[in-house]
Amino acid sequence: MNKIEHIGIAVTSLETSTIIYEKLFGSAAYKQEEVVSEGVKTAFFKNGPNKIELLEATNSESPIAKFIAKKGEGIHHIAFEVDDIVAEMARLEKEGFVLLNEIPKKGADNKLVAFLHPKSTNGVLIELCQELK
Amino acid sequence: MNKIEHIGIAVTSLETSTIIYEKLFGSAAYKQEEVVSEGVKTAFFKNGPNKIELLEATNSESPIAKFIAKKGEGIHHIAFEVDDIVAEMARLEKEGFVLLNEIPKKGADNKLVAFLHPKSTNGVLIELCQELK
Repeated sequence: MNKIEHIGIAVTSLETSTIIYEKLFGSAAYKQEEVVSEGVKTAFFKNGPNKIELLEATNSESPIAKFIAKKGEGIHHIAFEVDDIVAEMARLEKEGFVLLNEIPKKGADNKLVAFLHPKSTNGVLIELCQELK
Repeated sequence: MNKIEHIGIAVTSLETSTIIYEKLFGSAAYKQEEVVSEGVKTAFFKNGPNKIELLEATNSESPIAKFIAKKGEGIHHIAFEVDDIVAEMARLEKEGFVLLNEIPKKGADNKLVAFLHPKSTNGVLIELCQELK
């Protein structure tokens, strides 16, 4: 794992929260993107080597809608950048972590992603992500 | 704000969680430190330009004890590195963010720190931190 690639924050209104995070960072979101398969629309902010991803649910079955219903707005996941997601998934599974998907899937921002079950990581939803070349 | 300096994760047992995060990163914690004024003991992991801080409460009045009682283990805060914490606090207050401390205070890992109220940042507890020279 090379660095924190991004932190995902669940919000109820991408429009309202984008204004807040523009003020926080003093710069505009560099990208907005919808991921239909995950039921989310997102906005990305750069912060040096890291990013912040705001996520709004686009339907009630979206993991973000369920998260907000249960816990309210807030930090949803941490994503770590990896060079070889398949190798890293195999290493972590061997170490006893529980994977939420057995095969990497296409995520936002041109990435292959996989998630670790929060039960094996102190309640923290961890994403692995590898940049697609 | 230069980068995510660290992510703080509230845990019930620093000992148990240190073993988990050593497996996750494939490397040992580089520092353990108690911050008596905050009622916490901490362990730090490096991850490229970023850090992960595990926090265990040392008494029931600790903010970490209260957080876990309310929400369970999980991500407690995001800390952003700033060059001039006083200037950044003034800028953010002017932008409408609510500061939890009006004057920077001494935090873990040789830092001056200040917190923004989660109500003004979509439920996310944000820490500003400036390295002490």
